[in-house]
Amino acid sequence: MLYQALVKIHLKPGHSDPEGEMTARALKELLYPVKSVRVNKNYIILLESKSKSMAEARVEDMCKRLLANPTKDEYAIQVEKAR
Amino acid sequence: MLYQALVKIHLKPGHSDPEGEMTARALKELLYPVKSVRVNKNYIILLESKSKSMAEARVEDMCKRLLANPTKDEYAIQVEKAR
Repeated sequence: MLYQALVKIHLKPGHSDPEGEMTARALKELLYPVKSVRVNKNYIILLESKSKSMAEARVEDMCKRLLANPTKDEYAIQVEKAR
Repeated sequence: MLYQALVKIHLKPGHSDPEGEMTARALKELLYPVKSVRVNKNYIILLESKSKSMAEARVEDMCKRLLANPTKDEYAIQVEKAR
């Protein structure tokens, strides 16, 4: 069965976000009244799995091994059957 | 008034996603049964504005000038009052 996983990666509170800070600076230079910018990344992963719970466990494992940085990132996973 | 804008950037259909392809390849090398990976980026922007509609217009403008690549990106904007 084919499943689609949405993985939302965001920084843990208190960690600096260099890309967000650069973006905020660039927007301020263009005179936009910006206070702050944060940048999050989402992965949309299509994967084969026998069940939804196995797909969730697999994607959790992918996050720990490759997608998220355990020092600074938090992640949230949503899995559904692929359409 | 302070508003928070969520800007979701994703590739137009048919455009290649090198980061997603690299991620898919890395996951396959780790023997995950992955079919494909796409990567989207979200900006969360705090900005000053007199009204929600002005904030929306400002953020639309930011997308056109800086955040999105008009050739290959599509974007969606959600604005709400900052908590």
